[in-house]
Amino acid sequence: MTSSRDDWIDALIEAQRPGYSLDQAFYRDDAIFERDCERVLRRHWFMAGHVSEIPDSGDYRLFDVAGESIVLVRGREGAVHAHYNVCRHRGSRVLLAPTGSVASITCGYHGWSYTLDGRLRTAPRMPDDFVPAEYGLKPCHVKVVEGLIFVCLAEGPAPDIDAVAGHLRPLLRLHGFANARLAHREVFPVQANWKLAIENYLECYHCKPAHPEYCRVEIKADSIGDGSPVAMARYDTRHREWQALAERLGTMLPAVGTELPLDERLPYTEFGAGYRAPLRASHLTGTEDGRPAAPLMGEFRDYDGGETALGIGPFTYVLAYNDHAALFEFVPHAAERSEIVTSWLVHGDARDGEDYDRDRLTWLWTVTTRQDKSIIEANAAGIRSSRYERGPASLLERDLVGFREWYLAVVGSPSRIARLTRLGGGRYFGM
Amino acid sequence: MTSSRDDWIDALIEAQRPGYSLDQAFYRDDAIFERDCERVLRRHWFMAGHVSEIPDSGDYRLFDVAGESIVLVRGREGAVHAHYNVCRHRGSRVLLAPTGSVASITCGYHGWSYTLDGRLRTAPRMPDDFVPAEYGLKPCHVKVVEGLIFVCLAEGPAPDIDAVAGHLRPLLRLHGFANARLAHREVFPVQANWKLAIENYLECYHCKPAHPEYCRVEIKADSIGDGSPVAMARYDTRHREWQALAERLGTMLPAVGTELPLDERLPYTEFGAGYRAPLRASHLTGTEDGRPAAPLMGEFRDYDGGETALGIGPFTYVLAYNDHAALFEFVPHAAERSEIVTSWLVHGDARDGEDYDRDRLTWLWTVTTRQDKSIIEANAAGIRSSRYERGPASLLERDLVGFREWYLAVVGSPSRIARLTRLGGGRYFGM
Amino acid sequence: MTSSRDDWIDALIEAQRPGYSLDQAFYRDDAIFERDCERVLRRHWFMAGHVSEIPDSGDYRLFDVAGESIVLVRGREGAVHAHYNVCRHRGSRVLLAPTGSVASITCGYHGWSYTLDGRLRTAPRMPDDFVPAEYGLKPCHVKVVEGLIFVCLAEGPAPDIDAVAGHLRPLLRLHGFANARLAHREVFPVQANWKLAIENYLECYHCKPAHPEYCRVEIKADSIGDGSPVAMARYDTRHREWQALAERLGTMLPAVGTELPLDERLPYTEFGAGYRAPLRASHLTGTEDGRPAAPLMGEFRDYDGGETALGIGPFTYVLAYNDHAALFEFVPHAAERSEIVTSWLVHGDARDGEDYDRDRLTWLWTVTTRQDKSIIEANAAGIRSSRYERGPASLLERDLVGFREWYLAVVGSPSRIARLTRLGGGRYFGM
Repeated sequence: MTSSRDDWIDALIEAQRPGYSLDQAFYRDDAIFERDCERVLRRHWFMAGHVSEIPDSGDYRLFDVAGESIVLVRGREGAVHAHYNVCRHRGSRVLLAPTGSVASITCGYHGWSYTLDGRLRTAPRMPDDFVPAEYGLKPCHVKVVEGLIFVCLAEGPAPDIDAVAGHLRPLLRLHGFANARLAHREVFPVQANWKLAIENYLECYHCKPAHPEYCRVEIKADSIGDGSPVAMARYDTRHREWQALAERLGTMLPAVGTELPLDERLPYTEFGAGYRAPLRASHLTGTEDGRPAAPLMGEFRDYDGGETALGIGPFTYVLAYNDHAALFEFVPHAAERSEIVTSWLVHGDARDGEDYDRDRLTWLWTVTTRQDKSIIEANAAGIRSSRYERGPASLLERDLVGFREWYLAVVGSPSRIARLTRLGGGRYFGM
Repeated sequence: MTSSRDDWIDALIEAQRPGYSLDQAFYRDDAIFERDCERVLRRHWFMAGHVSEIPDSGDYRLFDVAGESIVLVRGREGAVHAHYNVCRHRGSRVLLAPTGSVASITCGYHGWSYTLDGRLRTAPRMPDDFVPAEYGLKPCHVKVVEGLIFVCLAEGPAPDIDAVAGHLRPLLRLHGFANARLAHREVFPVQANWKLAIENYLECYHCKPAHPEYCRVEIKADSIGDGSPVAMARYDTRHREWQALAERLGTMLPAVGTELPLDERLPYTEFGAGYRAPLRASHLTGTEDGRPAAPLMGEFRDYDGGETALGIGPFTYVLAYNDHAALFEFVPHAAERSEIVTSWLVHGDARDGEDYDRDRLTWLWTVTTRQDKSIIEANAAGIRSSRYERGPASLLERDLVGFREWYLAVVGSPSRIARLTRLGGGRYFGM
Repeated sequence: MTSSRDDWIDALIEAQRPGYSLDQAFYRDDAIFERDCERVLRRHWFMAGHVSEIPDSGDYRLFDVAGESIVLVRGREGAVHAHYNVCRHRGSRVLLAPTGSVASITCGYHGWSYTLDGRLRTAPRMPDDFVPAEYGLKPCHVKVVEGLIFVCLAEGPAPDIDAVAGHLRPLLRLHGFANARLAHREVFPVQANWKLAIENYLECYHCKPAHPEYCRVEIKADSIGDGSPVAMARYDTRHREWQALAERLGTMLPAVGTELPLDERLPYTEFGAGYRAPLRASHLTGTEDGRPAAPLMGEFRDYDGGETALGIGPFTYVLAYNDHAALFEFVPHAAERSEIVTSWLVHGDARDGEDYDRDRLTWLWTVTTRQDKSIIEANAAGIRSSRYERGPASLLERDLVGFREWYLAVVGSPSRIARLTRLGGGRYFGM
């Protein structure tokens, strides 16, 4: 990266207009994607899976992001380890199958074998001066938060995720994520920049035009999308009714969120937020007919008909119902290539085909994520036009505006941060 | 584009040798394709369809070229409008289906809705200071010439297409294009630079080796390709015989063509030419057996067994028979990716399966364009060799040489234009 | 290629560490691939086929490498000619079908026709001042070595291949390659840099972990891969027993190899080596059950149960058994795209289905090359990681280390050559 290229990016960042979408280059340019890699993708936390996917010692799964392959493996003592999937001999991928169970991590190329915690155990026919201790697998930052496995590609220290986790723990525990089980996962490849995928998630302005099924489940999307006094009053009524029930059931937890520092710590700070809200009165959970999908999870003893929305760092979002949860991971791969990885959690004891029907369970977020893939790709296609210009945000895109400002702050020069005013805590973004 | 890159292109343009094919870079290099975009693709007119494709108010079709998507839509008062298919909110493609019929142009993402002539009609939940009048769809230059819809991507004024249209109008009217109907369209993707596709169209030197079916219909290709006194005499005889018939039938129109100015107006001037010629005596029209394909079009009252060849700007070519016409649009997409869009017109009242058989109608230009795709791609493949050198033109590639000189003039520095001598009007190129 | 780019490459070459794998850029970077093209791919010899593929005058085959298409054609007098497949008119590929038989080399585009030895014979309708003698097909260096056809893309003189051929001739004649016949060919596309494919071929460190079938045929792979005194003694015993038999049968030829000059001649010098070794006692030849695959070849009158390993230049490797041979050509196409072309030779009189069964014949090197493709691609994938680091070679990767040193010498600055010490002759690399 030449310095003139860096100057060009810095000037472009300064030229962005608050409250408007970003210039074309932020969604297409390879040099800006490289900057994104340096300051966002290789600095912040990704959710890479759930502990139920690797229950026993030696169980592993691979997580791919931005050209990296990470091995998540359960160690001898039960801890989850994360290693770069790169043999220290000639650089081969060590494990090729996306999931599996191994006694040791042995490279299929030349048989170099590593312990589950990444130390080189055997390397056949090496010279006498070879020091195995210098050739362990490169470690990757990893943290388990209530059953969710997070990784961070930072070469130096990773941002503190414990503070976020502390804020969100009551909500995560309410839903029993630590004892949940992965019921299904679907990967949606998206021909678009990762920021377009996240921008789409961060607003429900598009829900009415684009997501009819979702609007039949969600009252908020519909009412706020409408915005008329009648619609808003209808939502308030429903919210009060639901809140009363939730309080009676002990499931009415307050909204939480981390404060983001408006100083040089910002780029190294992880953030998150969460809140609870009602579904339509007709719906106990996020199913097509509103009836239960699976056994109740966590601390729920009865259905309260609510949902819990969570955001953990820039890439990870959760929508949890009383009996299942949908997890969304936005995974960048290249300037115009991303994935939406959608995972469904159920109670750890729930058995497929007996306690839940996979098609019913996954209906809402299969149909809705398919729609999202389509609209995000149409957005990317339009932005490629020479006539694309940044446009103004609506009243329903506040979180989106917040995300863009955070992005420009962490990807730009430090001086930019001091000028930010809208960044705050609480119901920040993703909500 | 750095200035050193521009200098390199200008020097390369100066180094081209008149009468020889261009250097490899003109057919492969991304920077030269970007220059082509600036000075040719975003300055000259493309034929984007026929009015019969969007007969009623709200009918639309999309036309894609060089990364742009253009909405062609029939307005309330019957006029054809052209808009960039880019929503002014966050840049999404507004319309996704390639054709359709709409009451208003409504973006499927957030429901922003535009009138058919491109004004923003509704944008839900925008702040109070939002001024809808500032957010109409970006307009694209559009002109309808005897039923043919032309668009130009120029940001400033488009070159004058009326002068060309005026010259060609008698020929277009002879064939009744204004009242014709699109019978069929076939898109041929070509892995080659757009100039190779046009160079191929602009010469019939390849007709004998590459197009046996075409040579069974066309006497000129065969005779001139041969070039012997006997063959030339045979063609002269046939031409005289046909001319006498055409004059009797009132269908013998003279060849026409625009003069191109040899000064600074050249890059901003649109051009075109047209002429009539006979098919083989065995053929009334461009069918395999020479018998009629469809009802007579335009001013034809009987078959004269001729064809009309037209070129309108650099990208659009037409071969019209007495009862149908084939239109060819050369559509650049990237340095080595283009399309040949072949469209067939018939009389506006002709009904598929009753008045014409689609397979008979499209036989000649389906088999011939398939061959063209293959030879253009073989040309592109050979040019990628390190041993490729520009080669000399034959006597049958005069139009090709003219096209290359025009191209080098408009894509190069203005001073180059003054040195051009071969550019002229009349039967210029494409003929 | 800017000079700063060249400086960067030169500095990177200097920074490589002897005995370690190369930095990521050598396996991925487009600029380094361009340097590879200049100094290796367009300077050294490729094996492009076998004379049995073009037995008669006019028979041809195309050989594709690094963006070039080469026509190999049998001339009138029986000589094999090699031409760049680029018409001198407008640059089209002259021949499109991968193999065929022609009376003259006629371009399908405009009918320019060349003699089999490349002179322009006819070019219709050219101007009077056109001089056909100036427009022959561009010639490509070609040499036939005991039936194997080699080509070199050098613009100037090609390195001397006769010296190598002289060294290897006794081994090639033992196997009767001049009178052999191509029985089968399989092309394995590999998503990896060409050097990774060759590095993989040049070591058998991976044979035990990755090639179980191969290890059931080869005793050396297994024994040396093991390396224990017991295993080495087992191999020595088998070698002595086989050597005694081969000497009795007159098939025990000594190992040979060219010396590489450690001075400025190095980049222009071709090299090669060969030796014989036993298969397992259970195997007469390289078949699954060890029993014969086809009629004995060349000078073999009885099975000696050995194999002959040959390397000829950087890209060509051979494993010859008593009754058939497998040829391996490593063909670079782009920085991360190569092919392994595997060809099987049998006795020239052997008939498919009668004298040999194609599936039995090709079993070993079909299954083994498939495995190689997979491990080479896994190697390439791992090297793409930001955490990839060059790693140390094992005791079994001596030839690999030699290959890398040769590569860095010929691709780097001349001064580098003087510092090389490990480059030598005899059992150099590929062995």
